[in-house]
Amino acid sequence: MYRPEIKVIDCTVRDGGLMNKWQFDDAFVKQVYESVAAAGVDYMEIGYLSSESAFPRSEYGAWKFCAEPDLKRIIGKEPKKIKFAAMADIGRIDFNDIPPADQSSLDMVRVACYAHQVDAAVELAHHVMDKGYEATINLMAVSTVTGRELNEALDDLGKSRVPVIYVVDSFGNYYQEDIEHLVHLYQEHLPGKTIGLHMHNNQQLAFANTIAGIIANANYLDATLYGFGRGAGNCPLELLLSFLKNPKFRVRPLVEAIDKVVLPWYRKIEWGYSVPYMISGTLNQHPREAMAKMDADHRDSVLEFYDRVASQPV
Amino acid sequence: MYRPEIKVIDCTVRDGGLMNKWQFDDAFVKQVYESVAAAGVDYMEIGYLSSESAFPRSEYGAWKFCAEPDLKRIIGKEPKKIKFAAMADIGRIDFNDIPPADQSSLDMVRVACYAHQVDAAVELAHHVMDKGYEATINLMAVSTVTGRELNEALDDLGKSRVPVIYVVDSFGNYYQEDIEHLVHLYQEHLPGKTIGLHMHNNQQLAFANTIAGIIANANYLDATLYGFGRGAGNCPLELLLSFLKNPKFRVRPLVEAIDKVVLPWYRKIEWGYSVPYMISGTLNQHPREAMAKMDADHRDSVLEFYDRVASQPV
Repeated sequence: MYRPEIKVIDCTVRDGGLMNKWQFDDAFVKQVYESVAAAGVDYMEIGYLSSESAFPRSEYGAWKFCAEPDLKRIIGKEPKKIKFAAMADIGRIDFNDIPPADQSSLDMVRVACYAHQVDAAVELAHHVMDKGYEATINLMAVSTVTGRELNEALDDLGKSRVPVIYVVDSFGNYYQEDIEHLVHLYQEHLPGKTIGLHMHNNQQLAFANTIAGIIANANYLDATLYGFGRGAGNCPLELLLSFLKNPKFRVRPLVEAIDKVVLPWYRKIEWGYSVPYMISGTLNQHPREAMAKMDADHRDSVLEFYDRVASQPV
Repeated sequence: MYRPEIKVIDCTVRDGGLMNKWQFDDAFVKQVYESVAAAGVDYMEIGYLSSESAFPRSEYGAWKFCAEPDLKRIIGKEPKKIKFAAMADIGRIDFNDIPPADQSSLDMVRVACYAHQVDAAVELAHHVMDKGYEATINLMAVSTVTGRELNEALDDLGKSRVPVIYVVDSFGNYYQEDIEHLVHLYQEHLPGKTIGLHMHNNQQLAFANTIAGIIANANYLDATLYGFGRGAGNCPLELLLSFLKNPKFRVRPLVEAIDKVVLPWYRKIEWGYSVPYMISGTLNQHPREAMAKMDADHRDSVLEFYDRVASQPV
């Protein structure tokens, strides 16, 4: 039996855009929109909410900003077919640049923060909730903070009005038993709140860890088409929907989007499992060095990378 | 704490050879040999035991046969550094073609069979044990047999002298909870025997399912360098060793082998996760159609494949 509380969030444009500075043409974003809506996905995270004063439009594509005219162009003339979400990073969006929800096509704002930024994240999340949006807080890189720091951050989040808090495996470092442990820990500190999951695939465990979190009762599930996302990528949406039992979900529209618009990008910029990402994941490191490595020589001389970043055998 | 009963079997040459008819040069096989031995791996499965009357040497490389002169050439003049295993398929090896163990560099023969071939598999396994080899039986494609058939096959295996019986996810169809269930089922039917794991990666779960099996107390673990193996490939050896706690294991030699000899093959024949293998895995089908698809047009028009093989939505 399926769990009706489960919501699936497609993050293809937002997380995939970390690989190409959101340089997607409208045909790409429209195809993702049509396909994930037809597949029964609950939310489409279409990019970041950023202030245009902080990032130049000449360098970044439209989905770094999620301005209303860009959203409208994707929706077209028919009624909107799926809820839209955008991610906001602490300090990169001026509160005054966020319109009231009734003047926006966005339905949800997801605030990404590190443990030491929790107070700022709650302030931003409350602000967008007061403007009429749904909100989540996505607590990043918890694999690098101590147990005491995490407990304190969770207790602060517990006092907030934010209804959904995410377990984020930013570095792709966790095994299934870690996710099970974290979801239970979050539940203890966050009574009454919903737990979300955002996994990375450095150890080919993004889907497996999402399953482990589902079993532990996490209900907001992030995934992307063909795993399109930073570095080793994310939980593949097509695997997640074929696992979930809710009969509203359809895989064929996802295969169509992968076929038409995702594989062409994959052939250009390849994300997914590779030795440098495996190494950064097992060492619990940010993927930036591995990404630079992959950009520079495209999976060659991985032993050189190992010897440079692994101070001791993994 | 690590479990000393755990044995790791590298299947790179044997399972990877299913992708190229074992057309590996000696430099490839020697590098795998040196590296997996240096990494502390317990067995290297170096190919199949097949009768040369059944397969032409003109079409198949040396590791379809594992003849003693070929094995000796890899070992060279120094003492052998790791135990060698070879796989035998029912009906493809004449018993008379198997030398006594004391005249062979092979230490273990692994008999692969389907549920309806269990009696023949036990006969072959007992034969090689009587010739002095270690033996396992690898029961394939159990995701396609009924519960009654599986119980009967397991009970027959329970009456045998064969000490190690494998859970094999031939089609990459299982989730972690399936593997946990199967390992427990095998343990019930096979008291006193060791359970092995051989997973495929159609749903990016080969490593995760191996972890699930380890937690359920399976102790013989198959993996391959960079997941090199048929179709979506296998559990990546580098991930498995970085997960296992036994301090004898080393990852660096594996990265060296991947760098020097595995990635060049990957660039030529690409195995691993792709939409056709995902579809065959979720549909519980043999990967042969997906492999033909991948050979034919290399990951293009995956929607056409979906519509051809998926009679109903997955």
